[in-house]
Amino acid sequence: MNEQTNTLNTGPTVGQVKKQTFTFGQTGEELTLDCGRTLAPVSLAFETCGTLNKTKSNAILICHALTGDSHVAGFYSPDDNKPGWWDLMVGPGKPIDTNKYFVICSNVIGGCMGSTGPVSRNAATNKPYGTDFPVVTIGDMVECQRRLIDSLDIDKLLAVIGGSVGGMQVLEWSVRYPDRVCAALPLATTTKHSAQAIAFNEVARQAIMADPTWNQGNYYETGRPEHGLAVARMIGHITYLSDESMRHKFDRKLQDRCEFSFDFEADFQVESYLRYQGNKFVDRFDANSFLYLTKAADYFNLENAYGEGSLMAAFSRARCRYLVISFTSDWLYPTYQSKTMVKAMKKNGLDVSFCEIEAPWGHDAFLLPNERLNNLLSGFLDRVRAECVRGDTDAI
Amino acid sequence: MNEQTNTLNTGPTVGQVKKQTFTFGQTGEELTLDCGRTLAPVSLAFETCGTLNKTKSNAILICHALTGDSHVAGFYSPDDNKPGWWDLMVGPGKPIDTNKYFVICSNVIGGCMGSTGPVSRNAATNKPYGTDFPVVTIGDMVECQRRLIDSLDIDKLLAVIGGSVGGMQVLEWSVRYPDRVCAALPLATTTKHSAQAIAFNEVARQAIMADPTWNQGNYYETGRPEHGLAVARMIGHITYLSDESMRHKFDRKLQDRCEFSFDFEADFQVESYLRYQGNKFVDRFDANSFLYLTKAADYFNLENAYGEGSLMAAFSRARCRYLVISFTSDWLYPTYQSKTMVKAMKKNGLDVSFCEIEAPWGHDAFLLPNERLNNLLSGFLDRVRAECVRGDTDAI
Repeated sequence: MNEQTNTLNTGPTVGQVKKQTFTFGQTGEELTLDCGRTLAPVSLAFETCGTLNKTKSNAILICHALTGDSHVAGFYSPDDNKPGWWDLMVGPGKPIDTNKYFVICSNVIGGCMGSTGPVSRNAATNKPYGTDFPVVTIGDMVECQRRLIDSLDIDKLLAVIGGSVGGMQVLEWSVRYPDRVCAALPLATTTKHSAQAIAFNEVARQAIMADPTWNQGNYYETGRPEHGLAVARMIGHITYLSDESMRHKFDRKLQDRCEFSFDFEADFQVESYLRYQGNKFVDRFDANSFLYLTKAADYFNLENAYGEGSLMAAFSRARCRYLVISFTSDWLYPTYQSKTMVKAMKKNGLDVSFCEIEAPWGHDAFLLPNERLNNLLSGFLDRVRAECVRGDTDAI
Repeated sequence: MNEQTNTLNTGPTVGQVKKQTFTFGQTGEELTLDCGRTLAPVSLAFETCGTLNKTKSNAILICHALTGDSHVAGFYSPDDNKPGWWDLMVGPGKPIDTNKYFVICSNVIGGCMGSTGPVSRNAATNKPYGTDFPVVTIGDMVECQRRLIDSLDIDKLLAVIGGSVGGMQVLEWSVRYPDRVCAALPLATTTKHSAQAIAFNEVARQAIMADPTWNQGNYYETGRPEHGLAVARMIGHITYLSDESMRHKFDRKLQDRCEFSFDFEADFQVESYLRYQGNKFVDRFDANSFLYLTKAADYFNLENAYGEGSLMAAFSRARCRYLVISFTSDWLYPTYQSKTMVKAMKKNGLDVSFCEIEAPWGHDAFLLPNERLNNLLSGFLDRVRAECVRGDTDAI
């Protein structure tokens, strides 16, 4: 860690959560991105829960999904009634037990939740970057996270855990920095997007870019492309659920009416739900950021980046234990994609556990209460802890 | 047929196809729609191929899918190089053999391919209806088709055939006018949209309505919502293919480049393809019509319309033979939905053949070359012909 160029701004400790910002590259060590461009300074918003032990061997990095943020668990204050996005899983006594582990979660570069992204001020123009922001990759995200981990003086992460686009970051960590990860837990994810997954992202991007208020990405002073972003979110939302879960949740039930409207209002509950989800998303998310993050997910291709087209070659770099989990009804990243990665891992003689969990809730299943998921994660982490945490397993 | 109020305008016979318009309600017999509103006059663009036999017992009505038209087969002239949309299936010596059958296909009400719809002139205002056009249903479409069939003096159709939203019309015909259909062939269809299918349609509609040029449907003098309609089409297009077919067709192949662009141009072939499909669609289709036709599909619910919530009760009205066909990779109207209708038909003791065809091409499979589909259709029609065509089976 270079004290001159890296800064850790520790904010107030609120509740169980430490909300912080890490900045690097102010006076050097600029970030060279996969696209070839450089970026500086770069800030990452991050939060931690639990306590780092003396040997710094109990740290778990959690990587958030596409539109997530660093607020993974807990509340900011006693009055706060909205917990972090994976509060079900992370906290004292929970499967990722913050009595045992020091949990770190940072907002990705390109995001809009406190880390440097298209909404950030471009020092060269003193305006938000907009689409002048460089296109970032999953590799770039992980590179930034590595610098954050360096700044915390953590040599080796006990585990990296994440679902969906977070799972891509987990996979990237495991082959990019094989000596810095004891265990990797990629959930509901893939080593590369299918054509169908790219297609959904592309249509969502087109919905944003078709909105005239998007204005080639320069909308921060003129008003945001709310309609386009809402449609983009609605498209995404369908892919996070499943035929079965939508039938259970909505079927053909009407919304606040007994008969069809015979107009273009929301007749069905599922229509009303999607409109609500679209509008709610617009309040919290930046449209350009959505473009950048979906593009990063589409570009991700582990076999090309590390194996010259061979997934087996890519995983030959890995040294960690893996727990790979897929869900039966996830049609965005179907089980066959997890099986492909598991096969390539196993051919390299790696220590791999794989489970396809029976769940009707679609891709979102990894975020929902699931006893089987809880048991798999806590059991696997217990084993990794016994094998890898040094010195002070029982007393931090 | 009322000669005073109904008009058949027979256009020139071009190639093998007769392009015609049927209009009713000019001086009475206005159409009362399911929404309760009335509409007059109503025109249906329709085409015929083949020759109606003397007993008028060899007529087959083909119902087009969501954005189809009456041009089902053949060419308009020797110079025409774009055949009708189901030319693979319909024509002399083809599975729906126009040497044997008189084929009729009409554009649905609400459409924009020559039949009365939102783009038509509203006599009350002398402007296009726009969203003043009443919301129509699959039942209304079939009611108009029935009047067309009346005008041709055909008592009983030998068969009604259609895929997707065309299949909904087939099902509607079979229970609405049980005495007027010998055989019904619903392909790749459903008796009611799932929540997921409604969701996709709703997002597509939202994409159109979010386009400011849509202007509440009043855009005919100010310019069409091309961006919104293109996005809507792209969404639809994904649902017509399958994960597997997109992988076969595009996988992650790049479009006219060897490396990522690191911008928001179309990097992948699948992106380029979707943009092309979206833009091409805009040239031929009306945005309001898309709203109306998707809404009609979402409203369709055979069990509620005819069985007070029981599909078995709905099919108790039917008298025809059925050939029901689904495709393994169709995830818009999955096989389980066909099986549900087949079960309800069989419980009524109806003569039902059902086949799930192994095909990787998704929902669109019914439109693609498929030997199995050809054989099933021609074989089934041969049997129906032997049982139902009167008098002149071999010589028309």
